[in-house]
Amino acid sequence: MRTTMGWQAAGPARALRRAPLERRDLRPDDLAVRVDYCGVCHTDLHAVDGRDGAADALLVPGHEFTGVVTATGAEVTRFAAGDPVAVGNIVDSCGACAMCRGGQENFCHAFPTLTYGGTDRHDGSATLGAFSREYVVRDRFAYPLPAGLDPAAAAPLLCAGITVWEPLRALGVGPRTRVAVAGLGGLGHLAVKLAVALGAETTVVSRSPDKAEDARRLGAHGFVVSCDPERMAAARDRFDVVIDTISAPHDLGPYLGLVAMDGTLSHLGHLGPVTVETTDLLVGRKKLSSAGSGGRPATAAMLDFCAEHGITADIELLPSAQVNEALDRLRRNEVHYRFVLDMSDLD
Amino acid sequence: MRTTMGWQAAGPARALRRAPLERRDLRPDDLAVRVDYCGVCHTDLHAVDGRDGAADALLVPGHEFTGVVTATGAEVTRFAAGDPVAVGNIVDSCGACAMCRGGQENFCHAFPTLTYGGTDRHDGSATLGAFSREYVVRDRFAYPLPAGLDPAAAAPLLCAGITVWEPLRALGVGPRTRVAVAGLGGLGHLAVKLAVALGAETTVVSRSPDKAEDARRLGAHGFVVSCDPERMAAARDRFDVVIDTISAPHDLGPYLGLVAMDGTLSHLGHLGPVTVETTDLLVGRKKLSSAGSGGRPATAAMLDFCAEHGITADIELLPSAQVNEALDRLRRNEVHYRFVLDMSDLD
Repeated sequence: MRTTMGWQAAGPARALRRAPLERRDLRPDDLAVRVDYCGVCHTDLHAVDGRDGAADALLVPGHEFTGVVTATGAEVTRFAAGDPVAVGNIVDSCGACAMCRGGQENFCHAFPTLTYGGTDRHDGSATLGAFSREYVVRDRFAYPLPAGLDPAAAAPLLCAGITVWEPLRALGVGPRTRVAVAGLGGLGHLAVKLAVALGAETTVVSRSPDKAEDARRLGAHGFVVSCDPERMAAARDRFDVVIDTISAPHDLGPYLGLVAMDGTLSHLGHLGPVTVETTDLLVGRKKLSSAGSGGRPATAAMLDFCAEHGITADIELLPSAQVNEALDRLRRNEVHYRFVLDMSDLD
Repeated sequence: MRTTMGWQAAGPARALRRAPLERRDLRPDDLAVRVDYCGVCHTDLHAVDGRDGAADALLVPGHEFTGVVTATGAEVTRFAAGDPVAVGNIVDSCGACAMCRGGQENFCHAFPTLTYGGTDRHDGSATLGAFSREYVVRDRFAYPLPAGLDPAAAAPLLCAGITVWEPLRALGVGPRTRVAVAGLGGLGHLAVKLAVALGAETTVVSRSPDKAEDARRLGAHGFVVSCDPERMAAARDRFDVVIDTISAPHDLGPYLGLVAMDGTLSHLGHLGPVTVETTDLLVGRKKLSSAGSGGRPATAAMLDFCAEHGITADIELLPSAQVNEALDRLRRNEVHYRFVLDMSDLD
C-alpha cells in the first residue's frame, strides 16, 4: 500500500483531522496523482454533517481535484508522470451496460464508483476522497487538464462545472436560447459563465438584489429578484431553459412559471423527492428534469470548452489546514463562489 | 333566451335529472348546435361527485360532443345550418395573450372558458355543458367534423383524443419513436391508436394481463404487465416517450424507469401535486411533463389526422336517459373505452 496524508472524519467529532491514510498499490490501469487543489462541494458538507458518529466508516471528502501524475500502471498509455490531470466525482463504472457504452458512466446501471464513500469494484475497499495529497485513480477516469486553465480555479469544473454543463448541452442551449439561472452560488456562477459562452441570452434569478452586479460581471444579460412578485410576473414564460441551482428545498412553482412554452426546468444540486403542481407543468407544456455529474465524453468536452473560452470557477483558495473553516463558512453560505483547498501543506 | 332539455345536477341529489335549461340568444359569432352525441369523461364524474350539495350552482356536464349546426349568428361565415360539427372542452379564450395568439388557447393567460362550469366572458353567466340537446358556442371553438368519421365515436376525440394528441405531437412522436402507453382506458386506447398511426413502435403497459389481446387489436406492438417486476425490469430505459394515462394517484417511479435516456414521461388525466424522486429523473436525464386539452390548430389537425387514418374511439353508445348508469359504471371503471350518450331521446 501507499501512504499519504489527508483530512479525515472519524469518530464522533465533526471537524476533519489531519491523519495518514493508505492508497492501493497501482494496478496496471491506475495512475497515482499528486493532488494539488481540491474544491469544496456542498456534497462534502452533507457527507460530513450526515455522519452518525463513531459507528461510521472513515470519511475523506473531496471529489473535484487537479494535480500531477506521479506514477502510472504498466498498461497506462494516455498519461505519463508529470502530466497535469483533473478528476471528478466518478472513478470507475461497470463499462458494460448501455449507459457506460454510451459514454454516460454517471448513469451506470451498476452504479458508478464514487470518488469517496464508494466501494472499489475490485478489492471492495471504501473509496477515500481527495482532501489528501495523493489519489490513485483508474486512468479512464482522469482527464488531461488543458493548458491555460489555472489548476486551482479549474478544480471545481470537475463537479460543479460538469453538473451544469450536462443540462445546458442536453437541452440544446446555444445562440438564441433564453436561459435563466436560479441561484448564484458554486453551480450557478458556472452555469452563467457556460451559458454566456455558449451564446445564450442569460438571466440570473436570485433573491439577493446585491448579486446583480456580480451577475453582470459574470456576463449575465439580465437579473430578476426572485422575491419581487412584479419582476417575477414580468419574467413569466420567458425562458427556454431554467437551470435551478438552489440547494435548499424550495417551491418549484415560481421557477416553472419562468419557463416558456415547451421549455424545461432543470433542477440541480438537491436529491430526494420533489413535488410539483401538475398545472404548473401542464400550462405551457413545460418539462421538469434533473441533472448531476456527467459522463466521460461530456467531461472532456466541457474541459476543452472551458480552455477555449477561458472559463474557470471564481474561487477562494485556502491552505488545506483551513478545511474546517471552509466547511463552516459553507454551512453559512459564505462563499464566493467556491472554496478550493491547496494541498501542498500536507507535504 | 333559447330553451332546451338537459341532464342536470341540482340540489343535494347525486343523480342527474332531466330538466329544461336556457341557452343564450345567438351573438353575431355564435352557432346553435343540435347536440347528437356527447362523450362521458372522468372529468364529468369528478364534477358530479365533487358537488357540495344544495349550495352549489346548477351543473350540466358534457364537453366532448358532435352535432349539427341549426342556426348561425350574423357574422358567422365558416359554418351554415346543417354542417356537422364537433366541440371540445374550451368554448372561448381571451384571444389576445401570447398563448392565444400562438394557437394555444388551452393555455390562455386569462384562462379559457370551459364548456361547462366556466364563466362566459361577455355576460358572466355560468356555462352549462353538452349533456343536453342544444349548445350555443362561439364559432371559433367549433370544428367541422370531417366526413367519414362516425359522429358518435368521434365525440371523445374532442377531449380524450386531443389530450393524448398534444403530447404525442409536442414530443415529436413518429416513425422510429418508441412509445409506451400506461393505462388502457378512454385516454390510453386513443393514445395507442394515434401513436400507431403516427408510425411509432407502441407498447401498452397495464396491470391487467387480460388487456393484452385488446392492446394488440388496437395496434400495439408490445404489452408489459406493470405488476410483474421482471417484465418491468426488462422494459427499463426502453421508451423515448411514456404517456401515463392512469387516472388514479400512483407512484410515477416505475413509469419513469421505463423512459429511455433523454426521454419524457408525460403524465395525463390527473390534476394536483405530483411527487417524483430526483434520482428517477436524474439518472438518464429524463423529463417529466403533463398535458391536457389542446389549442384550436392542434384540435383541427387531430381531427384531420383521425379522418385520414379512420381513427375514432371505441365506444359504448347509450341513450342519454342512461346517463346515471354510465356515471356509475365509470365510477367502477366498467367501460370499454368510452361511454357516449345519444341525445336524441331528449327531443
